[in-house]
Amino acid sequence: MPRRIVIIGAHAAGVEAAAAARKTDRTAEITLLTTENRAGYSRCGIPFVIGGQIQKFNNLIVYPQTFYQMMKLNLKLETTATNIDTQNKAVEVQDKTGKQEKLPYDSLIITTGAYPFVPPIKGKEKQGVYVVRTLDDGENIEKALKQTKKAVVIGAGAIGLEVAVALTERGVKTTVVEFLPYALPLLLDQDMAELVSRKLEEKGINLIFGKAVDEILGTDKVKGVLVGGKEIETDMVIAATGVRANIELAKKSGITIGERAIKVNTRMETSVKDVYAAGDCVEYTHLVTGKPAAPQLGTTGVRQGKVAGINAAGGYAIFPGLLGSAITKLFDLEIGATGLSEWAAKREGIETVTGTITSKTRADYYPDAHPIRVKIIVEKDMGRVIGCQIVGEEEVTQRINALSFAIAKHMTAKELAKADTCYAPPLSETWEAMTLAAETALMKLK
Amino acid sequence: MPRRIVIIGAHAAGVEAAAAARKTDRTAEITLLTTENRAGYSRCGIPFVIGGQIQKFNNLIVYPQTFYQMMKLNLKLETTATNIDTQNKAVEVQDKTGKQEKLPYDSLIITTGAYPFVPPIKGKEKQGVYVVRTLDDGENIEKALKQTKKAVVIGAGAIGLEVAVALTERGVKTTVVEFLPYALPLLLDQDMAELVSRKLEEKGINLIFGKAVDEILGTDKVKGVLVGGKEIETDMVIAATGVRANIELAKKSGITIGERAIKVNTRMETSVKDVYAAGDCVEYTHLVTGKPAAPQLGTTGVRQGKVAGINAAGGYAIFPGLLGSAITKLFDLEIGATGLSEWAAKREGIETVTGTITSKTRADYYPDAHPIRVKIIVEKDMGRVIGCQIVGEEEVTQRINALSFAIAKHMTAKELAKADTCYAPPLSETWEAMTLAAETALMKLK
Repeated sequence: MPRRIVIIGAHAAGVEAAAAARKTDRTAEITLLTTENRAGYSRCGIPFVIGGQIQKFNNLIVYPQTFYQMMKLNLKLETTATNIDTQNKAVEVQDKTGKQEKLPYDSLIITTGAYPFVPPIKGKEKQGVYVVRTLDDGENIEKALKQTKKAVVIGAGAIGLEVAVALTERGVKTTVVEFLPYALPLLLDQDMAELVSRKLEEKGINLIFGKAVDEILGTDKVKGVLVGGKEIETDMVIAATGVRANIELAKKSGITIGERAIKVNTRMETSVKDVYAAGDCVEYTHLVTGKPAAPQLGTTGVRQGKVAGINAAGGYAIFPGLLGSAITKLFDLEIGATGLSEWAAKREGIETVTGTITSKTRADYYPDAHPIRVKIIVEKDMGRVIGCQIVGEEEVTQRINALSFAIAKHMTAKELAKADTCYAPPLSETWEAMTLAAETALMKLK
Repeated sequence: MPRRIVIIGAHAAGVEAAAAARKTDRTAEITLLTTENRAGYSRCGIPFVIGGQIQKFNNLIVYPQTFYQMMKLNLKLETTATNIDTQNKAVEVQDKTGKQEKLPYDSLIITTGAYPFVPPIKGKEKQGVYVVRTLDDGENIEKALKQTKKAVVIGAGAIGLEVAVALTERGVKTTVVEFLPYALPLLLDQDMAELVSRKLEEKGINLIFGKAVDEILGTDKVKGVLVGGKEIETDMVIAATGVRANIELAKKSGITIGERAIKVNTRMETSVKDVYAAGDCVEYTHLVTGKPAAPQLGTTGVRQGKVAGINAAGGYAIFPGLLGSAITKLFDLEIGATGLSEWAAKREGIETVTGTITSKTRADYYPDAHPIRVKIIVEKDMGRVIGCQIVGEEEVTQRINALSFAIAKHMTAKELAKADTCYAPPLSETWEAMTLAAETALMKLK
């Protein structure tokens, strides 16, 4: 009898798990469920459809219908998993017509993802308040844009700022309200975040830090928000106040939950035999802190999904841990980070020195050399690089990857300062900015 | 009495050595010599002045006169070191007027660089035959360009091709003749080089591989070249047939020469006490082969110069070894490599598997995603990444740096395949091309 694999969720982690399972076991019966009406799309692309860089929301569907056919995957849309019977190894599901069904499994993979968490702000149920998670969310915002002249985005994380930029590009006068004292607080330290704020303000975005939205005003429809006693008029509120792991289903099925998401071992196995989990709904060991972390990134999701899929299909693979490498583009600014920020390291009791430098992306004498700022965070005892943040107008992404490799392989600041980097006048400076930042940190390490 | 440091050479390695020496010893008397009339300029920029991207040759002078004043460096232009008296610790020099002088030293640094090696082709002394090494060379080519409609470049290395591109951009019909069977043979394997050839031919450059220039034709002035019995008309010949280390001075002073350049230890010390050497004139341990190598790159030069300068001034620093990371830009194509090519590994008796993949520089659905091709070379026994080659239209440089870090830190293909890379639709694909190439190699490793 073929192995039955059920996957709850059909986006980054889920579809990747299905593909990996199929490659591992050619005869398995693989079923994916999603509560949504579309599967296998890129959530990360939504702000760029709103901004107009991508024509329509359906373009974000990375896996077309033919993919599921070719891979012999049974995809059930608009289907909710209501219970997991771990004793009898079956998932109880209900489709949009209310029809219930039991799906027996030999292996189960939970990729239920995360949901946008909106704090209990008074008036948050009003018409004109949106979140940004699904294609439906995106389409709802798009529809409302015709009547929108002013918007307030709550939250200055990557999604919040990407949407704020998109709205600005669409001609909407946008205000961002962030409770924490600076932009991209999960990625950057305040010194690096200043560069981002400067760019956003330059482009006309109104930034309010260190304050919460106390109330969303209006009768039925949003008319304004109250921030620190002051009213800001707005036609639209986007709540981009972070996401929380979808763990209810796992929890009520007796699967162990960690600090904030499902606990898994290196094979992405949960506390229950033959039940795996991957993506935004799990937490996993951070390579620097050794503690559980849930960066809720697409790249982490696909990598974990792949490992879960291989194991669920009878193969063997482990997930080596995460660093939370992330990148975003806001107007012409690229902003990336990996490992720990100086602030996050401090919170963990890790003592650091840092090196920050502004260099150029090409030889000084070459036209169109852009400034690039690199901050390296170095652990004080071993002298290892444990984090980095980069802000620039080009060539940021692969520098983040380079430093992710360096951190994963325990490169010291000294090794980084002497690394064998490449150079050509149209493409880089003779002394690479990453090595210069390391050199700067070393001066404080003595 | 202040320490007297003499540096023979005043370009990448020499000036960097001087700066490092000054930072190490604030009171030292530091003297730099160069046979040229200008010092401290970027040789790598010369093709881009010819191409017109940079306005004038003097823009390549990275260190202006004020730098030497500020750093209290005594710079002697148009001065030749004729002998090193290692017994009495003095350099014998002669200036352009013929005046001779003895410069006593406590520490000596040899950064005599390399010279363009032109094979003994009949007619190579004719008017209209150029090399590309100094600003004078560049200015001579620039002057001749007014009368040039057709050019032949001998050698399809980075310099040869950069000049061929520059000439093409200036409207000169250009032919490149390379004795080896493909483009950039020191950087690439043939499969990757095909992408480069295709681009060059697309842009109108005539490429001839596997053949030598047998003769340069013309009475006084170049009129053509003879290649495989066929005459190619030309107004100009650029010999870009590689460089050789300038070792004559060191040799006759009794300093040990290795396989092809000056031998140094980890502190960049030669076989003679208190005599250091750095840059294009030295050979040094390659991090993968463990054998001496002389990649003759600007980046290697500055890194070695810095180490030599610190040690010569009484400090302590070592040079950790080299990988030969290099990058070039030809039209809109960026081409980079680090570590060993498949071909070079084979020559060294290193068995490998390779993984090659074409991916995109942005999400598939994002506008202007460019193709990028990545080849990873993996040593068969330990499974370590030992080399990589990348060709694409953007974001190549920092991927080379990333893989340079990976190779230096003994990253395995498996670790690379699972690395924590970053992703955002306008900046990268979900699965980074480097990890996919590693995955492809792994399939052959089993």
